[in-house]
Amino acid sequence: MDCNITVMTTDWLASHRERLDGALTAIRSRGYYSAFPESPSPRVYGETAAEDGKAAFEAHRGTTFALETPGASGTVSSEESPYGVPLDVQYPRTVENGLDELLAAAQKGLTDWRKGGIEGRVGVTLEILDRLHKRVFELAGAVQHTSGQAFVMAFQAGGAHALDRALEAIAYAYEEMSRYPATAIWEKPAKGDPIRLEKNFTVTGRGVALVIGCNTFPTWNSWPGLFASLVTGNAVIVKPHPLAVLPLAITVEVAREVLAEAGYDPNLVTLAAEHPGDGLAKPLALRPEVKLIDFTGGTEFGDWLEQNATQAEVFTEKAGVNAVIIDSTDSFKALCNNLAFTLSLYSGQMCTTTQNLFVPADGIETDEGHKTFDEVGAGIANSISKLLGDDARAVELLGGIVNQAVVNRLELAPEYGDVVLESRAITHPAYADAVVRTPLLVALDAKNEDVFSRECFGPVSFLVRTSGTAESIALFRQTVGDGGAMTAGVYSTDPAVLDEVREAALDVGVALSENLTGQVFVNQSAAFSDFHGTGANPAANATYTDGAYVASRFRVIQSRRHA
Amino acid sequence: MDCNITVMTTDWLASHRERLDGALTAIRSRGYYSAFPESPSPRVYGETAAEDGKAAFEAHRGTTFALETPGASGTVSSEESPYGVPLDVQYPRTVENGLDELLAAAQKGLTDWRKGGIEGRVGVTLEILDRLHKRVFELAGAVQHTSGQAFVMAFQAGGAHALDRALEAIAYAYEEMSRYPATAIWEKPAKGDPIRLEKNFTVTGRGVALVIGCNTFPTWNSWPGLFASLVTGNAVIVKPHPLAVLPLAITVEVAREVLAEAGYDPNLVTLAAEHPGDGLAKPLALRPEVKLIDFTGGTEFGDWLEQNATQAEVFTEKAGVNAVIIDSTDSFKALCNNLAFTLSLYSGQMCTTTQNLFVPADGIETDEGHKTFDEVGAGIANSISKLLGDDARAVELLGGIVNQAVVNRLELAPEYGDVVLESRAITHPAYADAVVRTPLLVALDAKNEDVFSRECFGPVSFLVRTSGTAESIALFRQTVGDGGAMTAGVYSTDPAVLDEVREAALDVGVALSENLTGQVFVNQSAAFSDFHGTGANPAANATYTDGAYVASRFRVIQSRRHA
Repeated sequence: MDCNITVMTTDWLASHRERLDGALTAIRSRGYYSAFPESPSPRVYGETAAEDGKAAFEAHRGTTFALETPGASGTVSSEESPYGVPLDVQYPRTVENGLDELLAAAQKGLTDWRKGGIEGRVGVTLEILDRLHKRVFELAGAVQHTSGQAFVMAFQAGGAHALDRALEAIAYAYEEMSRYPATAIWEKPAKGDPIRLEKNFTVTGRGVALVIGCNTFPTWNSWPGLFASLVTGNAVIVKPHPLAVLPLAITVEVAREVLAEAGYDPNLVTLAAEHPGDGLAKPLALRPEVKLIDFTGGTEFGDWLEQNATQAEVFTEKAGVNAVIIDSTDSFKALCNNLAFTLSLYSGQMCTTTQNLFVPADGIETDEGHKTFDEVGAGIANSISKLLGDDARAVELLGGIVNQAVVNRLELAPEYGDVVLESRAITHPAYADAVVRTPLLVALDAKNEDVFSRECFGPVSFLVRTSGTAESIALFRQTVGDGGAMTAGVYSTDPAVLDEVREAALDVGVALSENLTGQVFVNQSAAFSDFHGTGANPAANATYTDGAYVASRFRVIQSRRHA
Repeated sequence: MDCNITVMTTDWLASHRERLDGALTAIRSRGYYSAFPESPSPRVYGETAAEDGKAAFEAHRGTTFALETPGASGTVSSEESPYGVPLDVQYPRTVENGLDELLAAAQKGLTDWRKGGIEGRVGVTLEILDRLHKRVFELAGAVQHTSGQAFVMAFQAGGAHALDRALEAIAYAYEEMSRYPATAIWEKPAKGDPIRLEKNFTVTGRGVALVIGCNTFPTWNSWPGLFASLVTGNAVIVKPHPLAVLPLAITVEVAREVLAEAGYDPNLVTLAAEHPGDGLAKPLALRPEVKLIDFTGGTEFGDWLEQNATQAEVFTEKAGVNAVIIDSTDSFKALCNNLAFTLSLYSGQMCTTTQNLFVPADGIETDEGHKTFDEVGAGIANSISKLLGDDARAVELLGGIVNQAVVNRLELAPEYGDVVLESRAITHPAYADAVVRTPLLVALDAKNEDVFSRECFGPVSFLVRTSGTAESIALFRQTVGDGGAMTAGVYSTDPAVLDEVREAALDVGVALSENLTGQVFVNQSAAFSDFHGTGANPAANATYTDGAYVASRFRVIQSRRHA
C-alpha cells in the first residue's frame, strides 16, 4: 500500500461527502432522500446518455467479459433475455476445484483493506457507486435483458434506487463503525495518581463475504449486502444467478477498477459465475473462510444456508405470501387502481407483490355504496384491464416474464379457483420473441388455504373470500406468521380495524401499508425511509437496511498500554 | 396493562437518568466510567450493609427459594459451595415435559412488553439493576459460595462490575433502539403537490431469549445477555449452571418483582433450574420460540449451539488459549508481579487468565540485564510465591476451586513438562473444607503444541520455550487463530516487536495488552471501555458489549399511510 492511497481515498470521501451526509441525515429521520435521480430523462442525464448507455450495453453482446477471476477455468455463457435478444456474453467460469485459489486470492488484500481505515473504505465504496452511476444506462440495459424488467423500471429499480439502497447500506455501516473511537484515554481514580491507559480500537472485517444474486433484481437485491460487507473491511465474492450475470459483472468490474486505482488488491471483489447445473453456491457457502453470506432467492435454499452455513452470518431474503386485507374504503376507484398497478408492475414478479387479497364474502362498504365480493374483484380486474389496455404501453409496465418456471406456474393457476381476470399474452411491439403476460386473478374460498398459503411467484394473485374482516385478519396472521411476507396492506375506514391490523402486523412482524390510494404502492419501498423486509417473519431474516444489517459484518479489536 | 405503568416506568427512567446518561457518554468515548462502586467498604455502602447482606445470603441456606416457574415440577437442589458450606437451597425444577407450559407463559406478556416502548423498558431494566445493587452484598455471598470466588472479588466481579456490564448492555441497546424515529413524514417532490406519507416505526423483540449461565461467573457472564434481550422487548428464560443457581435465582426474583410492580407479566423473566443430569439446555435451545441464546461455557456445547440452534441468534463465549508474549522489558520485577497476580487471581479460573507464556529459549533483555529462560520462569514463580506466601491473605486472592474437574486437571498437569512452580493446597482459615490451590507453572518446549494449544482451564499455566520472539509470535498466531483467546499480552521494549504483535493480534482478532506493569492486568476488562472477547476468534462469537451484541435482538416494524 503506498501513500497515494490515503490521498486518493480522502479526495473521494471529500468529493462524495455531501451525498454521504445526506444519507446519514436521512437514515436518522427516515424522511425522503434520494442521491441518484430516478428519472432517465435527457434533462437530468444529458441528451446522449440513454443512447450511449444502450450502445455500451449492446457492445457486451457476443463478447467475453474482460474480468479475471482467480481459479476460474474457461468461460461460461448462461443468460437468456426474457425479451428474446441473444446476449451470448462469456464470463470466467468458477468451478469447485478452483475455490482454494479464489478464496486465497480474496483474502490476500484483507490486511491492506483493514489498514485503509473506515474513511478510506467509505471513500472507495462511494467512488464505486459514483462510477456505477455513470454507467447507469448501461446497467439498466443489462438489468432489463436479464430480469425482464421494462426499461424505465430497470433504470429505476436496477439503477437509481439500487444505488440509493447501496448508499443507505454504506451510511449505516459508516455510522456503525464510527460508534467506536479510534483511541481512548482511560483514567481510573486511585489513591495517589490515577491509573491511565491509552487504548486503540480497530475495525476489522470478518473475512470473506459471499453475495448470492437473484434473477429478478440482480443489482437492487445484491448491492446492499455487497457494499455493507465491502465497506466494513471484508472481501466479497459475488455469485450471480446464471440468468442474470451481466449487471453484477459490470458491478464487479467497476469495483475492481476503483480498488486497483487506489492501490488495493482488486481481488477484494470477484465474480464467481457458474454453469447453471454446477451448484457452486453450496460449496462456496460452506467454506470456512466465508464469514458473511447475503442471499436472495427461494426459501428452500435460504433455509439450507441458515441451517448449514453456521460458520457465517447469513442474511436471507426468501419467499413469502404478501397480503392485503380489504375491509372498506372511501375511495373504491383509487383502491382498485392502486392495487391494479401493484399486481401489474413487472408482471407481479416482485418479492413485494401482493399475492392474497382477503375480502369478506358479504362484500365491503365503499364511497360508491356497498360492493359485493364479486364487484370488488371486478373493480380490480377492470382497473388492471384499463391499465394494460394498450399493448405498447402495457409492456412498459409489465416487462417480460423472467423465466419459464414462472410461465409454467401461471398456466397451472386458473385451476385453483374461479378466474376473475384471465392472464393475457402480449406481443411486444419492439421484441417479437419477448414473453409478456398480464396478471391472473383467481377467486378462492378461505378454506383453500393449501393454495394461497404458499407463494405462487409471478403474475398470479388470489382474491380470498372470507367470512368477514375478522377471518381476514386471522388468515393474515396465519399465512404471514407461517409463510412470511415482505409486504402487507389494509384498506379500511374503521379506526378499530386499522388498529387491529396494525397490532396483527406487529405480532407477525410485517410492514403495513394503510389505505394506499395514490402514487405509492404496497410493493414499493423507498430507500432511506422504508425498510425492505423486517427480519421478523419467515420471508427474510434481515432488513434493508438497519443497524443489525451491518453491525455483525465487522469486529472491533482493541489494544491498550499504560499512558 | 393499566395506565400506571407509564407513570411508574417514566419515574424509574427519570430517577436513573444520570446513570444511563453516564453510560451513554462512556460507550461513545470508551473512557473510564463506573455507576456502581466497586469497594465494599462501609464508608461507601454503610456500616451494616455487609452484615445485612451476609445475613440475607445465609437466610437462603436450607430453604426453598420463593420463585414460581411455569411448568416446573417439584424442586431441585444441586449447589455445592467450593468453601464446603452446605447450601441446600431448593429451586423449582424445570423438566422437559414442562417446556410447553414454560414457553407459553414466557410469550404471554410479550405484547404488553412491546407496548411498554423503548423508554418504558429501559426504565424497568434500570430499576431492576438498582434493586440488584441494593442486594449486592447478598449477591456477593451467593456468587462466592457457588463460584468459589473470594468475597471481595465476588462483590466486585459478581456484583458491582457485573452491574456495570449490565448497564453497558442496556445503554447500547437504548442507543441502538433509538436510532430509528418513532414516526416520520416522508415527502417526495412530485409534479403538483408532493406525495406525503406518515410512517410509524415500532421496536419489537424477537420472542423468547434463553440465557445459559456458567459456574464461575454466574452474574457477570449472564447479565449482559439477559438485560440486552429483556430491554429490547424479549422474554428471558434463565437456565443457570446447576452449581451456580442462587445468584441467578435472586436476579430472576428481582426482575419479576419489578415487572409485576409495573403491571407487566412477571413470566417475562423465569428461572429454569435443572437437575445436573437433566440436559435441559439442548431441548430448550432448539425450541422454535427461542430466538436468542446467550451462552458461556465449554467449546463443545457452544459449537453445538451455533451449529444446531439455527432458529436463534446465538451469542457464545467458549474456551480459549490466552497468551502472553515475553520479548523484553524495562521493568522485570513489575512484569513478574503483574503476571503473578493474573495467574493467581481466582486460581486462574477466569476465561481471561493467561495460559501460555511464550519466552525465548535464549532468554530476554531486561532492566536487570539478561535473564535466561529459567530466570524468567523463576522470576514469575517467585512473585507468585511472595504474593501467596501468607495463607490468610492468599485465600482472599485465590478463592476456592470451582469444581472437582478443575482439581483433576491440575493434578495431571505436572506430567506435561518441567514444573517451574508447584501447586500448593492451602487450608482456608475460615472454611476448613474449602478447596484452595495455588497456580502451577510448567515449562514446555515449543514442539509440545499438543499440550499448550488446548485449554487447560484452572490454575495451570505453561512457560513455552521458543526459538525466539519470531517463533513466539508464530505460535501466538497459530494457537489463538485455531483455539481462540479472550485475552493476549506482550512485553517488549522494541517498537518493531510491539508493532508486529499488534498486527498479529488484529489478524487473529484478539485484544492486546502491552507492557502491563502496574495495577491493570491482562485478565481484567473494564466495563464501558474494554471489550470482553472480540467475536473475531474461536473463543467467542460476540463481545461484551457493542452494537452487534444488541442490534439483532429486536426488529423494527413500520406502518405507513397517506398524510
